Amino acid sequence: MERTCLAVILAAGDSTRMKSSKSKVLHPIANRPMIAHVVDAVAKSDISSVALVVGRDADEVASAAQVGSVKIEAFLQRERLGTGHAVLAAREAIARGYDDIIVTCGDVPLQTEGPLTAARQLLAEGSDVVVIGFHTDKPTGYGRLLVKDGELIAIREERDATDAERAVKWCNSGLMAINGRKALDLLSRIGNGNAKGEYYLTDLVEIARSIGGRVTAVDAPEVEMMGCNNRAELAVIERFWQERRRHEMMISGVTMIAPETVSLSYDTVIGQDALIEPNVVFGPGTTIDGGAVIHAFSHIEGAHVSAGATVGPFARLRPGADLAAGSKVGNFCEVKNGKIGEGAKVNHLTYIGDAKIGAAANIGAGTITCNYDGVNKYETLIGANTFIGSNSSLVAPVSIGDNAYVASGSVITADVPADALALGRARQELKPGRATVLRERALAIKAAKKAKP
Amino acid sequence: MERTCLAVILAAGDSTRMKSSKSKVLHPIANRPMIAHVVDAVAKSDISSVALVVGRDADEVASAAQVGSVKIEAFLQRERLGTGHAVLAAREAIARGYDDIIVTCGDVPLQTEGPLTAARQLLAEGSDVVVIGFHTDKPTGYGRLLVKDGELIAIREERDATDAERAVKWCNSGLMAINGRKALDLLSRIGNGNAKGEYYLTDLVEIARSIGGRVTAVDAPEVEMMGCNNRAELAVIERFWQERRRHEMMISGVTMIAPETVSLSYDTVIGQDALIEPNVVFGPGTTIDGGAVIHAFSHIEGAHVSAGATVGPFARLRPGADLAAGSKVGNFCEVKNGKIGEGAKVNHLTYIGDAKIGAAANIGAGTITCNYDGVNKYETLIGANTFIGSNSSLVAPVSIGDNAYVASGSVITADVPADALALGRARQELKPGRATVLRERALAIKAAKKAKP
Amino acid sequence: MERTCLAVILAAGDSTRMKSSKSKVLHPIANRPMIAHVVDAVAKSDISSVALVVGRDADEVASAAQVGSVKIEAFLQRERLGTGHAVLAAREAIARGYDDIIVTCGDVPLQTEGPLTAARQLLAEGSDVVVIGFHTDKPTGYGRLLVKDGELIAIREERDATDAERAVKWCNSGLMAINGRKALDLLSRIGNGNAKGEYYLTDLVEIARSIGGRVTAVDAPEVEMMGCNNRAELAVIERFWQERRRHEMMISGVTMIAPETVSLSYDTVIGQDALIEPNVVFGPGTTIDGGAVIHAFSHIEGAHVSAGATVGPFARLRPGADLAAGSKVGNFCEVKNGKIGEGAKVNHLTYIGDAKIGAAANIGAGTITCNYDGVNKYETLIGANTFIGSNSSLVAPVSIGDNAYVASGSVITADVPADALALGRARQELKPGRATVLRERALAIKAAKKAKP
Repeated sequence: MERTCLAVILAAGDSTRMKSSKSKVLHPIANRPMIAHVVDAVAKSDISSVALVVGRDADEVASAAQVGSVKIEAFLQRERLGTGHAVLAAREAIARGYDDIIVTCGDVPLQTEGPLTAARQLLAEGSDVVVIGFHTDKPTGYGRLLVKDGELIAIREERDATDAERAVKWCNSGLMAINGRKALDLLSRIGNGNAKGEYYLTDLVEIARSIGGRVTAVDAPEVEMMGCNNRAELAVIERFWQERRRHEMMISGVTMIAPETVSLSYDTVIGQDALIEPNVVFGPGTTIDGGAVIHAFSHIEGAHVSAGATVGPFARLRPGADLAAGSKVGNFCEVKNGKIGEGAKVNHLTYIGDAKIGAAANIGAGTITCNYDGVNKYETLIGANTFIGSNSSLVAPVSIGDNAYVASGSVITADVPADALALGRARQELKPGRATVLRERALAIKAAKKAKP
Repeated sequence: MERTCLAVILAAGDSTRMKSSKSKVLHPIANRPMIAHVVDAVAKSDISSVALVVGRDADEVASAAQVGSVKIEAFLQRERLGTGHAVLAAREAIARGYDDIIVTCGDVPLQTEGPLTAARQLLAEGSDVVVIGFHTDKPTGYGRLLVKDGELIAIREERDATDAERAVKWCNSGLMAINGRKALDLLSRIGNGNAKGEYYLTDLVEIARSIGGRVTAVDAPEVEMMGCNNRAELAVIERFWQERRRHEMMISGVTMIAPETVSLSYDTVIGQDALIEPNVVFGPGTTIDGGAVIHAFSHIEGAHVSAGATVGPFARLRPGADLAAGSKVGNFCEVKNGKIGEGAKVNHLTYIGDAKIGAAANIGAGTITCNYDGVNKYETLIGANTFIGSNSSLVAPVSIGDNAYVASGSVITADVPADALALGRARQELKPGRATVLRERALAIKAAKKAKP
Repeated sequence: MERTCLAVILAAGDSTRMKSSKSKVLHPIANRPMIAHVVDAVAKSDISSVALVVGRDADEVASAAQVGSVKIEAFLQRERLGTGHAVLAAREAIARGYDDIIVTCGDVPLQTEGPLTAARQLLAEGSDVVVIGFHTDKPTGYGRLLVKDGELIAIREERDATDAERAVKWCNSGLMAINGRKALDLLSRIGNGNAKGEYYLTDLVEIARSIGGRVTAVDAPEVEMMGCNNRAELAVIERFWQERRRHEMMISGVTMIAPETVSLSYDTVIGQDALIEPNVVFGPGTTIDGGAVIHAFSHIEGAHVSAGATVGPFARLRPGADLAAGSKVGNFCEVKNGKIGEGAKVNHLTYIGDAKIGAAANIGAGTITCNYDGVNKYETLIGANTFIGSNSSLVAPVSIGDNAYVASGSVITADVPADALALGRARQELKPGRATVLRERALAIKAAKKAKP
């Protein structure tokens, strides 16, 4: 769009009903603060200037709102005197004279660019005020949009509505677009002569019409207009977000056997023909290539899984885990900052941290890379085609050469050359009949304990 | 309430459709027997005397019903001759002369004190019989409540109903309140002159009215009146219970990202600003303090998690696990009867059983407290600021002093003094080229196996 | 049924919207290819001859369709010229002269034998064509079934329907039964004089009636007639399948606390009074006996769990796991091809592979059977009443005799006789004050690292 636009995002609410130690717009949806979802929708609507009206946790909110290269200015609303008052906290920005002003809410995180763009289109066609509405089967409590001859003639509050008006199912979302050249004048005319003594943004409808302005409305999907007032609603919004994104992914060729048990993050990327089994959680920063298989009960964050690699069940990939093609990380295994080479296998009960594993290596069950000495972290290098016996401890920094073999139960503290066998374990001893003695002794102790009062 | 009251709880059903080896009222909802939920609702309605009518599994049912200090007497219903007959099994208790009698069902575990209290209020205002009804969109099969001039004139069974009566959506729940002074007389008048030859409690409506008594009805939420007849209904009731409790918790300030994947127990306590990620199961006896973080795939029972502590993903806390502020129990870790000190970390693949861990200790991956010798259990003490190397085995009883260091892969069988380093592992040996020999030998064996027919 | 029948299964679609590298009928529902579910329904309707019309992935589809002893012939549809054309790809089979022809779809996996049998019944009673319909609240887009005097007079496509016809909620499923003696004649009359130039099977209604034939319709449940066109629909079908099977299991006496979190496979068998906690995944080939307990977060495939055995939480049973009565496999344990004897316990962080464990054995936390040398797999035998200390490695092939005792942290490479104690670990050494030195050294390294630019 050629027209300049400022988005005023209202994010100064007290969030009382969230019962939270932080502002509600900081609460995450899909691992991203609510406010960042709103800024993202604004940015996708080609709006590059944002006036953020903040109250509680002002600095954290401003910081969380920073998405990409959007230019964000924060304006502090010192008193809470209604939505009209909140918008005017950004008076300085509005006064710069944009073509369009969009007013949106920081606690409406499912909104997309569609309705914003549609509202701006109506401004471009001559409207002075455009209200964004939504249709709902449960309109009780919302202001109803009353339309006549293509114009919005009023937002009728529940308490003032006739029965016929109450039957209207088109409601006010709280989002609005305003002619940027007239905005300051219109906003300044809002008064507080009402029961609560507050300045209501919705008064703009009447004000604009009273001076001959054109007021219209556009429709948005109900789900996109959901506001968040408490943590139950937060969970509902999260669910809708997840359902929307999972559906997009399935339509694009990702198989999810039980999608309702898969948690995605805002930036999760999954390629075509990947298979995601039930009960998988994706934290931020993960890319699953097409054709990879994520088995049930996997937890993946900040990781990359290549085509043909398989993860889980019961696997955890942490930031920096990078699985090459055909590799495998199996049950009760954790990989953090570790590259798993092509076709390498980390199948059971293993911790790989700060390590590089070569192609076709086989890491036995119970292997631990001991990457931490209580203060510093060190790296473990494991060559291609190596075999690390079960229950081995690799004390970093240490390097295992290609084709080397580490015997089960070894503690490896020094580098192992290629092709070598390393052992670090005691020789087995047998004490015939001794198990019987031990057992009898233990039983005697037990009997003695019981005998005590 | 000043009035005395006896609750007669019907719990003598055969539970045939449960296809179970135990009475249905013993089946748990939220890890508590169904019957105990009912007694709890009764107790919350300020009723302190309960007559429990039992049949199958009489002793187990009576024992499971004991909640708090409620006085419970069990009465055996020897034959199954209808609800009227069942109530009279408690004749001895009723005959004591309470002001109010409440008749409720042991297989209606979602009931709360609200409808019981409302029904007693109507008794206090002069009703002789008060039926508890519920509104439903699917009334088919239920007796309909027919009301005229504020009185309940009949409970009309489906088969006897006119079309107009069938359209009534207010139905009989099976719960009832009776004037305690008249109850025995009224109940004695119930006959069995019907097709099945049974004594129906619902006949009280007609009986009371026929002798000039006042019969009324109160409404209860449909969901609270759900009865349990098979295990599919058991699962539905469990779901409703979970939804109700999760909602209460979220409204009170607990974040649940995917509440539908969180299983609570009847006594789970979670503080404000705690974060519960998807896929968490809480067994009985757990308290999560405000501000604690429970990551996905955690299983917690009989445990206490302090503010700022984090659990999981993939962690299991068993009875007696007690995590101090800022401590951490991570993936594939199990803690049973173990105190984890302030800021201590148990991050990976570890078993802590019968142990106390000091503040700021770091327990390496794969550490096992060997608390069991096959007969007895022993304790492990780990001091503050200790570092336990990965894959260590601490053979209890054993004590590790403050600031001590256990080398990776050690088996510790004797106490380690403060500040000491303990090692219990073999020195590493290298056999150059030996890996190649081993691999060739293994391949030869494989080839030989294949060659065999 | 005495009448002979051929089922023509249409499975030649391009599956474009699946965005998949394989034909959609190969995508599994409940771990079984979609096409096999359809063949199974056909077989249950007593139809023993199947003509499978294939296109893409012809060989894989034919192979996946083989269920039990059903006789399946595959016919390649080379061009995609409509459903009428597809059926005629099986002309050779149809020409053999069956009494009944059933035409069904390979991408309708929830279908059961009921509607097929009902349709054949109408053929037996004189119908020439029987259309299988379903009732839906959302008929938009489907052909409507127009019935008069007990006969189906037309399938009216959406675009040709009057408003009154559009209000009809009985729709065409795409499934059909045809008089087998007349089928070839009827099918040959289908023309392609329409906008798309395709041959529509639905034209048979008009064709049969135009030559005096009798056309009728039968009703099928809407859910059974769901077709699969993309992966979102695949997930919905999977969910319906799971809900149906879980409900059957619960009704038959299996307790599922949160059934919506339990994933079953097509062949999962669970006995009465088994308890399945939330979040359990059953892969193919599993039998859970009555009275077994499967705790939360368990993953079970190809395994058998006996009465009174308990699994999980966080346990994985892989093919060949066989748990005897009263045995236990606990958290973070994996069993593959392993027999766990009566009352034996594998409680924590253990890998059992290719092993037999005797009755009442106690396998300590962190035990690993080292069954793989990088090339071959070997067996571990563990006797009855043995005690395997924690963190032990049992290097197969190896045998531990009855009542033997393996000390914690041992690497066992040679057989242990009955009643013997085996140790394979180093003696503990202490270096007083050395922990302090190590920590100071580590801190110095850290400081040096930070000092670097």
